[in-house]
Amino acid sequence: MANADKTRGIAAITDMKPKPLTDALQTAALAADVTIALALAHLDGPLPDAMRYAVSGGKALRAFLVMEGARLHGFDGTQSAPAAAAIEALHAYSLVHDDLPCMDDDDLRRGQPTVHKKWDEAIAVLAGDALQTLAFELVTQTDCAIKDRLILSTTLAQAAGIRGMVGGQAMDIAAETADTPLTLDQIITLQKGKTGALISWSAMAGPRMAGKTDDPMQTYGDCLGLAFQIADDALDIEGNADEVGKAVGKDAAAGKATFVSLLGLDGAKTRAAQLVAEACDALSVYGDDADTLRDAARFVIDRKK
Amino acid sequence: MANADKTRGIAAITDMKPKPLTDALQTAALAADVTIALALAHLDGPLPDAMRYAVSGGKALRAFLVMEGARLHGFDGTQSAPAAAAIEALHAYSLVHDDLPCMDDDDLRRGQPTVHKKWDEAIAVLAGDALQTLAFELVTQTDCAIKDRLILSTTLAQAAGIRGMVGGQAMDIAAETADTPLTLDQIITLQKGKTGALISWSAMAGPRMAGKTDDPMQTYGDCLGLAFQIADDALDIEGNADEVGKAVGKDAAAGKATFVSLLGLDGAKTRAAQLVAEACDALSVYGDDADTLRDAARFVIDRKK
Repeated sequence: MANADKTRGIAAITDMKPKPLTDALQTAALAADVTIALALAHLDGPLPDAMRYAVSGGKALRAFLVMEGARLHGFDGTQSAPAAAAIEALHAYSLVHDDLPCMDDDDLRRGQPTVHKKWDEAIAVLAGDALQTLAFELVTQTDCAIKDRLILSTTLAQAAGIRGMVGGQAMDIAAETADTPLTLDQIITLQKGKTGALISWSAMAGPRMAGKTDDPMQTYGDCLGLAFQIADDALDIEGNADEVGKAVGKDAAAGKATFVSLLGLDGAKTRAAQLVAEACDALSVYGDDADTLRDAARFVIDRKK
Repeated sequence: MANADKTRGIAAITDMKPKPLTDALQTAALAADVTIALALAHLDGPLPDAMRYAVSGGKALRAFLVMEGARLHGFDGTQSAPAAAAIEALHAYSLVHDDLPCMDDDDLRRGQPTVHKKWDEAIAVLAGDALQTLAFELVTQTDCAIKDRLILSTTLAQAAGIRGMVGGQAMDIAAETADTPLTLDQIITLQKGKTGALISWSAMAGPRMAGKTDDPMQTYGDCLGLAFQIADDALDIEGNADEVGKAVGKDAAAGKATFVSLLGLDGAKTRAAQLVAEACDALSVYGDDADTLRDAARFVIDRKK
C-alpha cells in the first residue's frame, strides 16, 4: 500500500460515517494488521514471521463485524481495533492448526502455501499457539469500560473453546470416521461451533463494548454464521481452487455430509438466502446506518472465495 | 480419593492457615482439578477426556504458587482457584503440544502415555488448543476486583505468548539446529520464557489479585523459575525415567547446551541452591507465614521428578 493510501486508510479507521462494504473491509483489515504488527514489533525469526504471514491476506470479515458493530454503538475504529485484531488472530490460529497434516492436511490457504509447508510443523504448531495467546492479550486492550473488556475476554474464550469452535472441530473430525453421515441438525450444531461461534462473537463485540448483553446483532451474527458455512459448502462444490485460494471438492471426495449433500445445491442456496434476509431484517432498529452490514450479509453468500 | 478425604480437602481450600508443603500441594491440585472438572462438566468424547487426562497427575506447583501468594494477600482458595486452575490448564496445554512428534516427540509424560500416543495427533493438537482457551476463560473468573481480573488476564497472555513461554520454546527449537551451542546468557533468556514466565506469573497472581504491581513474590518467582530449570537439567542427567515420569538423557544425547553442560553438575547445583536462598530471603516481609513457600523453593531443587 502506498503511503498516501495508508494515510487515507488510517483516517478511515476513525471515521464514524458508514462506508461502502469494500472500503469497510479494507479498513478493518488495515486496523487489524496495524494492531498485530505493533504487538509483534521488534520480533525477528521464523515464529513471528509465520504469525504475521498467517494473519495476512484474509477477508477480515470478522474484524469488519467487530468494527461495524462497535461503530453502531458509538465506538470508532481505534477503540475497537484491539478486539478486531484479536478475532483475526484467533481465526488465523484456527486455520494454521486446521491445515496441519494430522488435521485437514492442506497445502494451500488464501492462495499461498500453508504455514507448515512454508516453514515446518513445529513452527505451525507454535505460531498457532502464539496467535491464540495474542488474541487474548489484544482483546483485553479494547478501548471500553474495564467490566466490558472482561466480558469480551470471557465470551471470546467461550466462543473459541471446547463449547464453541474447538468443540465443533472435534465433531467434524469425529464425523469423518463415523459409520453414518451426520443429520442436518447435527451439522447445524457442528457449524454453530466450528464457524458460527467466532462470527457471532464478532457481531456481538460492539454491543458488548457498550455494556449490552442482548442486541439484534446476535440474531444477525447467528444467521450470518450459518449462511457463511452453507456458502462455504457450496464453494467446495462449485468453486475453482485458484479463485477460492484453497483445495476444493474435498468434502464430496470424502463422502462427508454437508449442507449441500443434505439440501441439494439449490436447496442450500435457498436456505442461505433466507438466512441472509433474516440477518438483514434483524438490523431494522439501526436503519440505514446498518446498510454496510446488510451488504456484508449478501456478500457472504455471493463470494467466490 | 475417598469421600472423607474429599471433604477434608475442600475444607482445606478455604483454610487461611499455612499448611505443610505436601498438604498445600495436594490442596492446590484438588482446587485446580475441581475447577477444571466443573468447567468440563457434561462433556463427553475423546477431546474432553484428553483435556482431563492432560491436566491430571502433575505436581500442581504453579497452582500452589497462585494459592499461596493469594493466601498471603488475604484471599482464600475458593477465590484463587480459577487462577490456579487457569495456570494448570495453560501448563498442561504447553506439555501436550511440546510432546507432539513434530516437537519433542515424547511418548511418556508424568509416567503415562502422552496424549498423542493415547489418542492421536489431531486430538493432541485440539486438546492443547482447548486447554489454552480454557485457561483464558477461567482466569477471568478469579474472585477479585474486576480491574485486577483484567490485569491477571493480560499478564497471563504476556507470560504465555511469543514474548514469554512460546518465545522460549521457539528459541529452544532453533538452538537444536544451530551450529554453535547457546551461551549461559542465552540459556537464561530462553529459560525465562520457556519455564520462568509461567512460574513468575503464578507467584505474582496473588499480589495482583490484591491490586499490587510490585511485590517480593516477583523476585521469589523469578529465582524459583530459574532454579526449577537448573534442577530439570540436572534430573535429565541424574534422574531415572521411571521416577521422573518422562524420558531422560535427551539433552546430552542431542549435544544441547544446558545449565549442567555449561556449569558442570556441581556448579549447576550450587547455582540452584544460591537462587533458592535468594528466593527465600525475598519473602522476609511475610515472616513465618511464607514458610510453605520457602519449603517449596527447597523442594524444587531436591525433587526426583
